[in-house]
Amino acid sequence: MARQAYRASLFHLPDAPDGGRPPLDGWFADGGLLIEDGVVVEAGAWETIGPRLPRDVPVTRYSHALIVPGFVDAHVHFPQIDMIASHGVQLMGWLTDYTYPVEERFADPQLARQTADFFLDQLLRHGTTTALVFATVHKSSVEALFESALARNMRLIGGKVLMDRNAPAGICDTAETGYRDSQALIRAWHGRGRLGYAVTPRFALTSSERQLELAGRLLSENPGVRLHTHLAENHEEIAIVRRMFPDCRDYLAVYEKFGLATRHSVFAHGVHLSDSEWQRLGKCGSALAFCPTSNLFLGSGLFDCASAGFHHVPVGLGTDVGAGTSLSLLQTMNEAYKVSQLRKAPIDVFQLFHMATLGGARALKLDHKIGNFLPGKEADFLVLDLKATALIARRLAQVKAVQDVLFALAVLGDDRAVAETFVAGKRVYRKSPDTGSAP
Amino acid sequence: MARQAYRASLFHLPDAPDGGRPPLDGWFADGGLLIEDGVVVEAGAWETIGPRLPRDVPVTRYSHALIVPGFVDAHVHFPQIDMIASHGVQLMGWLTDYTYPVEERFADPQLARQTADFFLDQLLRHGTTTALVFATVHKSSVEALFESALARNMRLIGGKVLMDRNAPAGICDTAETGYRDSQALIRAWHGRGRLGYAVTPRFALTSSERQLELAGRLLSENPGVRLHTHLAENHEEIAIVRRMFPDCRDYLAVYEKFGLATRHSVFAHGVHLSDSEWQRLGKCGSALAFCPTSNLFLGSGLFDCASAGFHHVPVGLGTDVGAGTSLSLLQTMNEAYKVSQLRKAPIDVFQLFHMATLGGARALKLDHKIGNFLPGKEADFLVLDLKATALIARRLAQVKAVQDVLFALAVLGDDRAVAETFVAGKRVYRKSPDTGSAP
Repeated sequence: MARQAYRASLFHLPDAPDGGRPPLDGWFADGGLLIEDGVVVEAGAWETIGPRLPRDVPVTRYSHALIVPGFVDAHVHFPQIDMIASHGVQLMGWLTDYTYPVEERFADPQLARQTADFFLDQLLRHGTTTALVFATVHKSSVEALFESALARNMRLIGGKVLMDRNAPAGICDTAETGYRDSQALIRAWHGRGRLGYAVTPRFALTSSERQLELAGRLLSENPGVRLHTHLAENHEEIAIVRRMFPDCRDYLAVYEKFGLATRHSVFAHGVHLSDSEWQRLGKCGSALAFCPTSNLFLGSGLFDCASAGFHHVPVGLGTDVGAGTSLSLLQTMNEAYKVSQLRKAPIDVFQLFHMATLGGARALKLDHKIGNFLPGKEADFLVLDLKATALIARRLAQVKAVQDVLFALAVLGDDRAVAETFVAGKRVYRKSPDTGSAP
Repeated sequence: MARQAYRASLFHLPDAPDGGRPPLDGWFADGGLLIEDGVVVEAGAWETIGPRLPRDVPVTRYSHALIVPGFVDAHVHFPQIDMIASHGVQLMGWLTDYTYPVEERFADPQLARQTADFFLDQLLRHGTTTALVFATVHKSSVEALFESALARNMRLIGGKVLMDRNAPAGICDTAETGYRDSQALIRAWHGRGRLGYAVTPRFALTSSERQLELAGRLLSENPGVRLHTHLAENHEEIAIVRRMFPDCRDYLAVYEKFGLATRHSVFAHGVHLSDSEWQRLGKCGSALAFCPTSNLFLGSGLFDCASAGFHHVPVGLGTDVGAGTSLSLLQTMNEAYKVSQLRKAPIDVFQLFHMATLGGARALKLDHKIGNFLPGKEADFLVLDLKATALIARRLAQVKAVQDVLFALAVLGDDRAVAETFVAGKRVYRKSPDTGSAP
């Protein structure tokens, strides 16, 4: 691929935001992004980049548009895309009533592949270029996901669910088959294209001690492989974990006991953590996925961003679809903000965008590859439409400051705000021209 | 206008829903709506209506569509449409930092008229055919709103803000000018076309006792006129009200003292009410507007639907834009559900649709005119697009039961779900064909 330049307003976070101060080194009202072979050469002011460009570099110029890094979804279940918006229960009932029956169907590899294709196309439509994804217990469901992701050249991490108790037989493995299947998947897929593998026990209460032990062994045998599971989402769940693991002082201790709390671990939720758990997370370098639309939809509770910041726990934003109600990281930012307001500790818009880009990449230990536009990063980026809806256009006509523009997009935006999505420098999604136009 | 028939799936609530039981007398998978002169003649199964239709009655047939009553927005501020998605404060700072400066501009009648036109077009686009609307302190802002609504033949209730203290001078009236202007507006507009007037003190703390007294007089002098104000949204607000009205036992008592808690009153929010206030609301017949997106956005708190039900307090859904984050009653239902989940008392989808249609009409004392499709009701209705987005289409392919269809629309829908909007039998909005189509 030859060089290619894109000109529009541009925002990225060269580093984590520092309090409420606008990170102006990442904001260019008239900006440029120069790409070569799917990698960022330079991002900055057009007046710097433009004049130095050789004549043969094609320039794509956008009006009323903002280029940002592709979004990172730090926790999502691809097989649950069809059960989104199921009604009326909290976590444990959700799993029994909806999740397990749906996941059972993924024994069918064709269903898995068709669903994976739909799911990944939807991610790209919503501006998500990287995700950490739960498959099902079936090995073939992971293969379906990875094949689809490879075909789109997406940087994606996924894994087979490990679950050998407290669930219907049809979606249980055993400690040994779970280990063997995971090992085979890691050999076949980890590091292939832009793919990575995550050892994926569903959560403490559906795995035997033996299975958790073998999950730990998978991690130590395969450096760089991630650990992806759930932690402290719901009070009933926590109470059951305590009963099942009486020798562990708390929920996190179960994962610690089996070597699963590492700097390559991502725990979804962490809504109800003790001070001690926060401190230990901060020390071991594990990350949390904050999933506001899911935490509200299931009534799980209000994630504590302030404690995460205080204890230096990396946090990415997760949609957690199917329990989450939107695949859009913009809508997820909207509700993350609302959660922080209910906690009387509002997070600012730079923190919101950080959790959806660079912060998410850090949570997934992918920040050396993606998350912003520093030279050498892979060119996953979005062209956001600043006139995506009449309401967004009208609001943005009132404001100029970067924080106000970004906040309006976070609060009012959805998939219509994504005009184009690029993966490794190649456009993989373009909104149809009339979508979201004013009446 | 001659007779006109519409054929599609159809759902309305002939009466308030009874617990979780699907109100099947309002659900027709193949339904019909027969209209004459802007009024409902009949709604029901097509197999009943169709064969009896005279040949000259034109039939509009929709595929993958659901006809529902037009939505009622029980609390919204039209001048705040441009300040939607402003960042970072709770109620009192919100008013000072954002609201008052914006409302000051509405001294300009041209701005008011242009904004009212935009606002009402947006309501129709989002499927809202009736709203209870705050204007600003300026008499001309109400005239602008009513002129725009009259031109669209919308059933709409609005009023001039009364505010004579604790706000910038430029947007204060006096007790006497407030009374006089309101009286003149009532004479000119109440009952004209489909319009109604609401006496509109902003809230207890921006009106003198004299002004509240005159507001009470406006109500008693003008039977049928509504009262529209705010109540118990935020703890700081409540504390100030207590200091300002030391002789009143609580917030509601201030309104009671001046004769403002009547069966024609609508109080926005009511997030923090005592048992006594709930009981008294139940007795006086005043209604509440539940505004979830606003209550979350400003971190005000979680509305208590269960208490409202227990005390038989009528509740409508309000968007409360600009503090609300969407004009869509569907998105408002989504967040209403989340609020109820956080309170561990999930409301079902029939309650959600009730609050957005018949319940909202009851809250506004308009249920003899609108809210469902009983014969004689004004024909305000929506054609919802069951394939509005790829995700909605896919989810609806999984489910058949009316509660699942409605819930998917409430959770996943937004303005794209509104294919057409009819006001008094006339189509006033139609989505452009490509809007929201799948990639």
